[in-house]
Amino acid sequence: MRIVALAGGIGGARFLRGLREAIGPQDEITVIGNTGDDIHLFGLKVCPDLDTVMYTLGGGIHEEQGWGRTDETWSIKAEMKEYGVGPEWFGLGDRDFATHLVRSQMLTAGYTLSQVTEALCVRWRPGVRLLPMSDDRVETHVRITDDQGTRAIHFQEYWVRLHAAVDAEAIVPVGADTAKPAPGVLEAIAAADVILFPPSNPVVSIGTILAVPGIRAAVAAAPAPVVGLSPIIGGAPVRGMADKVLAAVGVEATAEAVALNYGSELLDGWLVDSVDEAAVAAVEAGGIACRAVPLLMTDVAATAEMARAALALAERVRG
Amino acid sequence: MRIVALAGGIGGARFLRGLREAIGPQDEITVIGNTGDDIHLFGLKVCPDLDTVMYTLGGGIHEEQGWGRTDETWSIKAEMKEYGVGPEWFGLGDRDFATHLVRSQMLTAGYTLSQVTEALCVRWRPGVRLLPMSDDRVETHVRITDDQGTRAIHFQEYWVRLHAAVDAEAIVPVGADTAKPAPGVLEAIAAADVILFPPSNPVVSIGTILAVPGIRAAVAAAPAPVVGLSPIIGGAPVRGMADKVLAAVGVEATAEAVALNYGSELLDGWLVDSVDEAAVAAVEAGGIACRAVPLLMTDVAATAEMARAALALAERVRG
Repeated sequence: MRIVALAGGIGGARFLRGLREAIGPQDEITVIGNTGDDIHLFGLKVCPDLDTVMYTLGGGIHEEQGWGRTDETWSIKAEMKEYGVGPEWFGLGDRDFATHLVRSQMLTAGYTLSQVTEALCVRWRPGVRLLPMSDDRVETHVRITDDQGTRAIHFQEYWVRLHAAVDAEAIVPVGADTAKPAPGVLEAIAAADVILFPPSNPVVSIGTILAVPGIRAAVAAAPAPVVGLSPIIGGAPVRGMADKVLAAVGVEATAEAVALNYGSELLDGWLVDSVDEAAVAAVEAGGIACRAVPLLMTDVAATAEMARAALALAERVRG
Repeated sequence: MRIVALAGGIGGARFLRGLREAIGPQDEITVIGNTGDDIHLFGLKVCPDLDTVMYTLGGGIHEEQGWGRTDETWSIKAEMKEYGVGPEWFGLGDRDFATHLVRSQMLTAGYTLSQVTEALCVRWRPGVRLLPMSDDRVETHVRITDDQGTRAIHFQEYWVRLHAAVDAEAIVPVGADTAKPAPGVLEAIAAADVILFPPSNPVVSIGTILAVPGIRAAVAAAPAPVVGLSPIIGGAPVRGMADKVLAAVGVEATAEAVALNYGSELLDGWLVDSVDEAAVAAVEAGGIACRAVPLLMTDVAATAEMARAALALAERVRG
């Protein structure tokens, strides 16, 4: 079975770890990773979502934190403070820096982000084929209004520095309109037996991937069933601040609103958490098959159960 | 008193620390640093000699090692090994990486190496004005013959990877012929009251600085007395492998041969170590005033004594 999953950072990565447990030895997972939260820091190209997937599946993630490396040291951060060189609000540890150094050196040498990601995965052996959504630069910006007026800032600044404490007025994937899907992305979607939307942020992770011209249409046209898992449980995001960016696109932070916003042209099935049993009817009324199952990724075993439920729903809607 | 010193790495840096102790509060030191051993590693610009001067005078040097940072961590090096990305033979610690990151980011943004060096020194407060010899790229290459044939390799590869174990057939400062002295270099030489050649490598440190068009002529034409300190004691370099590169330029590894190779058109005075008392006559016969004094930089006090002896000799030759 060929499974394609669209993925953001922490939520996507943890789901994939469960999915990997849930499949058989003949099954293959292709991950299309969000690169809209990529950022240039200290002259280096940082790809937080791709790295979180790579580190999580490769056994190098800082488990409690959910991002960055285990056994990390912070010498460079301390030195940057001494030099007065920022930003201070983005946490890059020394081991993590090594990844960005290797990536940046390869990009400068002319390799594409796809090629670089493949090279990095030679070390990490994530057990999936990890593709960036695009080799072109796409940067998610967030329009806010604060005492400096109305302006667009990088998603990372909104998320990490401001902790989404200011209302997001608009989410703009800068560059997405002219970006091309990375090699293999459309082919993987077309050839998939199942397409999954992990419980990643529907706006700035899955939404950004779908904003790359051609990807949304490919998912909608794919013969494979498309099944998503709600990142909203009981009216709040499990992790992160998805409600803030959902508000920016006019979508309520509920399991059913997120599903209906994707719509039946994309989704064939949707999993909500057991506490959102009441949402099932509304989702199904929207033409999307829906089941309520436990959706808390408390450990790999629980996450594998979620993945099995998603694959089972895919089989059911395949009919 | 305005003192100008040409300097390489460890030997120059340690001498400068003594010189700083030896001068009065009104005296000023301008250091013209060798950049011929600069190297691009992991996509970053590394300036080993400038950094050694900066770290040594700024209190951040790894004292026993003579290069690199104190309290260093080595996470990036460990990660690079995991990624299979080299070179492994060049030791860059995490704190050191921060310097190269800041430098490289500024260079990419369009600042010159002079401007970057000045910016880095805002933090390090070395107590001297540190100027790179040139803002243009100059790279010392070494011609060798080994089982791969005759070829030119980067000086760092010769020095650090091969430990100068192969004979150097020629030393070529690639790019020096078209390099321009950095802003302030020629002006500092012309305005100097004393010019010093610390006990740095006469070929790949002082020699490379002098190879930048205009610098040798400026030193020769300067009204200030020029006094050097022998890096060779008792027929061997105090540190490093200067004899190997002296052989490449046909100069014997003796205190007198090094002085006579600079020649009286450059040097007005020369200090040899007490064990080389016998060399004094030969140096003076070459038209260079010479004194024998202890030249081992065992600690800052002993080094300050050396600096005082050099300044005293400068006063004597000034006449």
